[in-house]
Amino acid sequence: MGHERIGRIKGILRDDNIDGILITALENVRYLSGFTGSDGALVMTESMGYFLTDSRYTTQAKEEMSGFEVIEHKKKIEGLSDLINDLGMSRVGFEAQGLTYQAHKELAEKIRGGQLIPVNERIKNIRVVKDEEEIGRIKRAIEIASKSLRENTYRVTPGNQEREIALELEFSMRRNGADNIAFDTIVASGARSALPHGKASEKRIGEGELVVIDFGARYRGYYSDETCTLFCGKPNRRQKEVYRIVKDAHDKTLSSVRPRMKAVELDAVARGWIRNAGYGDYFGHGTGHGVGLEVHENPVIGPESEDILEEGMVFTIEPGIYIPGWGGVRIEDMVLVTGSGCEVLTDLSKEVTVTG
Amino acid sequence: MGHERIGRIKGILRDDNIDGILITALENVRYLSGFTGSDGALVMTESMGYFLTDSRYTTQAKEEMSGFEVIEHKKKIEGLSDLINDLGMSRVGFEAQGLTYQAHKELAEKIRGGQLIPVNERIKNIRVVKDEEEIGRIKRAIEIASKSLRENTYRVTPGNQEREIALELEFSMRRNGADNIAFDTIVASGARSALPHGKASEKRIGEGELVVIDFGARYRGYYSDETCTLFCGKPNRRQKEVYRIVKDAHDKTLSSVRPRMKAVELDAVARGWIRNAGYGDYFGHGTGHGVGLEVHENPVIGPESEDILEEGMVFTIEPGIYIPGWGGVRIEDMVLVTGSGCEVLTDLSKEVTVTG
Repeated sequence: MGHERIGRIKGILRDDNIDGILITALENVRYLSGFTGSDGALVMTESMGYFLTDSRYTTQAKEEMSGFEVIEHKKKIEGLSDLINDLGMSRVGFEAQGLTYQAHKELAEKIRGGQLIPVNERIKNIRVVKDEEEIGRIKRAIEIASKSLRENTYRVTPGNQEREIALELEFSMRRNGADNIAFDTIVASGARSALPHGKASEKRIGEGELVVIDFGARYRGYYSDETCTLFCGKPNRRQKEVYRIVKDAHDKTLSSVRPRMKAVELDAVARGWIRNAGYGDYFGHGTGHGVGLEVHENPVIGPESEDILEEGMVFTIEPGIYIPGWGGVRIEDMVLVTGSGCEVLTDLSKEVTVTG
Repeated sequence: MGHERIGRIKGILRDDNIDGILITALENVRYLSGFTGSDGALVMTESMGYFLTDSRYTTQAKEEMSGFEVIEHKKKIEGLSDLINDLGMSRVGFEAQGLTYQAHKELAEKIRGGQLIPVNERIKNIRVVKDEEEIGRIKRAIEIASKSLRENTYRVTPGNQEREIALELEFSMRRNGADNIAFDTIVASGARSALPHGKASEKRIGEGELVVIDFGARYRGYYSDETCTLFCGKPNRRQKEVYRIVKDAHDKTLSSVRPRMKAVELDAVARGWIRNAGYGDYFGHGTGHGVGLEVHENPVIGPESEDILEEGMVFTIEPGIYIPGWGGVRIEDMVLVTGSGCEVLTDLSKEVTVTG
């Protein structure tokens, strides 16, 4: 597996006619080397791989990776430019989205006789198709999250606080084996459910409210991300109507996934359905996003996306309707693109669920 | 308070002779506007402030901030360049460490008749001196963390797993009011304590081992960061010796803090002490770092730092000795620089603590 990943880097070296590539985006560093720490960079040439870090991580790096020479530096930019100069590299690729303007400027000044060349388009998609090991970890993260929500659904009841529910859900995920939570858990009830990113607050759940729960787990570096909208008590007519529209948009989008499809067309399935139902103004965000070593990564499933779906991609499908002052509904699953459609990875019913 | 922060921006506008400044580093966005979401940018001119975000955050932004015009965009770069073009700005400051090479390039191409000017040095220190509100939040984060460790110290006992101890400590922090943990908790015992960033593992604590616990809480956006090294059982002579050296280095550094001192001189106090004791090769990292809206921010207390200490700065003091194969000791407190020295904010004894 490691060989295949490194093979992709070698493809970039040859196609872009560069002597080597500097990898600074931490998720790409981890993907290529296995390093799990919070600071490190790679320099990869056709024949060699170098891993640069500071003294906090050298012992760990040597334990975690093979095939890379571990180099300890005091200052990152100096460490990188010294190595590039020592290797006599002249055309050095870098990640245009993995280096700040400042770091690029300092590095460019310190490299002698070398030129920094952005390899943006190729490198930003290097992790987009998941291999077996990655899919295994993602599935485990999803299992942990789904199980944890099932263990805590009973807490969504009148009088309970959003924040308490989020805490117990997070504790369950950790007890069930998550490295950490994926992001600040969203538990948004009543009018707050109209906030697409309504972090759990001190608010208590009220009878008859919609409750949006958007959460995820991280397992061995890989994330899950899913959303359920629950009804605390018997839903009223409008709640049922809005839920049905979002659920249908979600189901139609799931069943439309095909390899080689344009992401923008998949987005249009959800967006068109909601627009035709008369709620187009209330669905502002994209239909989905890739999930892997980052919670939000490529592909983008949205109206401006230029991505093409491929077998092995993992992303969310999460249409929603948000009506300010009234409330909102979002339904989110993660899917894996297969040879003919998709496998739904999230294992939580999206039928109307009444709690409390 | 908000006025004083915005006044600092206006100072940069005048001194750098720029029409406005683009703020993209999320912590600076929060600092200046109060926005707590995960995506947004500011454009600030002498007379106006604009906050740009996508549809997920517009309602929240309007609730959280005043004095800013909230603008919703579909694509960030387009949203920013449209605004800059509409305002007819010609000299536009930006954060050289807050924009990627790619984002800078795209933005530069889309701005008509305008020039992007890095304001790096000024802006990167805008949050370095904390005001009363910030110090209050930092103190609360520290209280939560310290209380939580005291509640769980009894768990550091032979047979208990590093990961279980970390989990219970994290649960306590969340129950005691933390928004989240500050970073993956380090519980590193026995030989693993020689890893400065040894995340809690499946390893069980052994009798007679050193146990390094490095952890923190986040409270209303602000972090705490502290480290205790505990003895699980009666310490042996070498453990006591190494602990004593680190403790003395730590105490001498604490008592050396003065406003207007060079950070590199403060670092030299800890580093010199450990070197003179014969362990110079085993202390590779910096002596400390600023803590605020980021766990690691300016000032840097290290051998390469060019920072000068000022009253109101908050940073860690965390010397350590790490002997591969044997183990390590780190002692970390957070301090606030006062008019004549420093106030130690962390409220946990650093005397030899035997558990189990």
